[in-house]
Amino acid sequence: MRSLKVELGDRSYPIHIGGNLLQQPELLLPHLHSERTLIITNETVAPLYLDRLLNTLADKQVDSLILPDGEVYKTLATTELIFNHLLENRYSRDTTLIALGGGVIGDIVGFAAACYQRGVEFVQIPTTLLSQVDSSVGGKTGVNHHLGKNMIGAFYQPQCVLASTDTLTSLPQRELSAGLAEIIKYGLIADATFFRWLEDNIDALLTLDETAINYAVERSCQCKAEVVASDELEQSGRRALLNLGHTFGHAIETGMGYGNWLHGEAVGCGMLLAAEFSARLGWLNDEQVARSRALITAAKLPTALPSEMDCQQMLDLMAVDKKVKQGKLRLVLLRDIGEAVFSSDFDQGLLRETIQDFSQRS
Amino acid sequence: MRSLKVELGDRSYPIHIGGNLLQQPELLLPHLHSERTLIITNETVAPLYLDRLLNTLADKQVDSLILPDGEVYKTLATTELIFNHLLENRYSRDTTLIALGGGVIGDIVGFAAACYQRGVEFVQIPTTLLSQVDSSVGGKTGVNHHLGKNMIGAFYQPQCVLASTDTLTSLPQRELSAGLAEIIKYGLIADATFFRWLEDNIDALLTLDETAINYAVERSCQCKAEVVASDELEQSGRRALLNLGHTFGHAIETGMGYGNWLHGEAVGCGMLLAAEFSARLGWLNDEQVARSRALITAAKLPTALPSEMDCQQMLDLMAVDKKVKQGKLRLVLLRDIGEAVFSSDFDQGLLRETIQDFSQRS
Repeated sequence: MRSLKVELGDRSYPIHIGGNLLQQPELLLPHLHSERTLIITNETVAPLYLDRLLNTLADKQVDSLILPDGEVYKTLATTELIFNHLLENRYSRDTTLIALGGGVIGDIVGFAAACYQRGVEFVQIPTTLLSQVDSSVGGKTGVNHHLGKNMIGAFYQPQCVLASTDTLTSLPQRELSAGLAEIIKYGLIADATFFRWLEDNIDALLTLDETAINYAVERSCQCKAEVVASDELEQSGRRALLNLGHTFGHAIETGMGYGNWLHGEAVGCGMLLAAEFSARLGWLNDEQVARSRALITAAKLPTALPSEMDCQQMLDLMAVDKKVKQGKLRLVLLRDIGEAVFSSDFDQGLLRETIQDFSQRS
Repeated sequence: MRSLKVELGDRSYPIHIGGNLLQQPELLLPHLHSERTLIITNETVAPLYLDRLLNTLADKQVDSLILPDGEVYKTLATTELIFNHLLENRYSRDTTLIALGGGVIGDIVGFAAACYQRGVEFVQIPTTLLSQVDSSVGGKTGVNHHLGKNMIGAFYQPQCVLASTDTLTSLPQRELSAGLAEIIKYGLIADATFFRWLEDNIDALLTLDETAINYAVERSCQCKAEVVASDELEQSGRRALLNLGHTFGHAIETGMGYGNWLHGEAVGCGMLLAAEFSARLGWLNDEQVARSRALITAAKLPTALPSEMDCQQMLDLMAVDKKVKQGKLRLVLLRDIGEAVFSSDFDQGLLRETIQDFSQRS
């Protein structure tokens, strides 16, 4: 097992990464300070891991709540189900919520924890690759609005993150690829050496080679933890770099209806859009774009926009992005593999052309 | 005009108190950092003060949203109306929300600001006595759940508070009394001299004597600002002292259906309950209780429980209070006029007897 720390002063917390962590009470118990604990999971994850976690915490007063599965349920309405359950069962502020599941569960439960009685503690136990390398770390919580992804939420840090990589064996192929998108992102924005390692190890990752997966999760969490520690509330622009591909990706997710494209799939396609747009601006060369395309393709991620969406719809949806400032769209773009920039200094016409090229013409 | 400051490091902000502040752009403009501003108010306050504020901010890009009036609308559903409006009109994170109204507007708008795109700036312009002396200061935001008051919310500080005391002239008598409840609270918990001043000036306050009102608002805000600066997130127990009468009061509000008793009315009755219970515990003497009762009565606040509620219902509703810890109810009680304590060390039977005595037997 490897452990990292997200350094945020009195809100610092550890990330533990390795196999079979759900069976190790000594990892969790030090972070359960409250009288009662509620595990919140979904109907897909519950049959796989809920009993295991309940057994591990048998000495504590622990109950569970099982939500429906899917991005389409990442809503204020589902958050309200959590509040109803907590109040009907008289949970006080002296409560810890445990998010057991993927990014949707982590985001909703984190947001519910941020708001219930103005804040109770919570723990992240991510069970998908995407949530282990990205969404469980850093305290971005929230839900979707039908007009935009993650538009309602809070910055709210967990007590700890337990990334038990054995849970990845139960993941469908699409979910694995979705997670790889966020891993590739760290290579693209900050670490050319890691990008090269990913090029060499993409097949090992796709077959869940234990050493490769553990390393990829650890390196991703390291990168994320470092960025979050330096810009927790996305104020300096540094944290925004973690959103490479996300402005395009969120537009795809919203436009297609939540859950039809996985978040990681949309981000994969969005990163390639960002790379190709960067090339059009003269910032990346052809070889760098080709390497980006090759790795995203090897990870079995989509490389074209869904046929249901056109360029104008993409641009309309991108206009509500959280990074819009003074009416100007700001995008994370690439200067090199391993070097991202956050910029609004680009030609809208070139952007339109790039998106047009990604549209599937039937 | 008098100005105070809530000292919270880089989240510090001023409170301006005085007459006709809504007409003074120089008070507001320094706190509107964002591209767009949305004033959120309700259908009662809008006809009185919205145009005035819009005129004052004529040089900025300002729009408004008018919500229905009343505690019954302090819900997640109303918050969602705000999110809908913001997204339909493409408000970015670069937005300031202005809460123009009483405590309900301030609490909802503050909560919406805390959650919209994980946080946008907001300004409090309280137009009721209660919100000027209490709810607009200190960053407690949130909405009600049908099972409990303020159960969903966030600690989220405004950019500034503008308490324009001329707006109090439009207040119905009941709302004025409700505000006096929170003013009396500061005397009871922290300032015997102020309590004595209130005894001497209660009639001047009820007739909105300008000097008296301005002083009472200022002294209340000073007291609140000081407590909040020392315990922003209600962790040390000091901030909890501001909740004198509130555990009883919230139970009344929830039990009666939100909006039937005003918050301040419920708190007024709740403070007297706390005083009488403190006397039963031997902590207050008869004279201190009599003075408390006399001032609460003089402020035209209720001094008995609503006839619709019985003792058991009160106790059941109090059991979900946010201050419950390890299954134990904790109450703010009085050791003296001007000295409150936060305690769970009391006899449940005596509590039941006290509540029973407040029940109206018909």
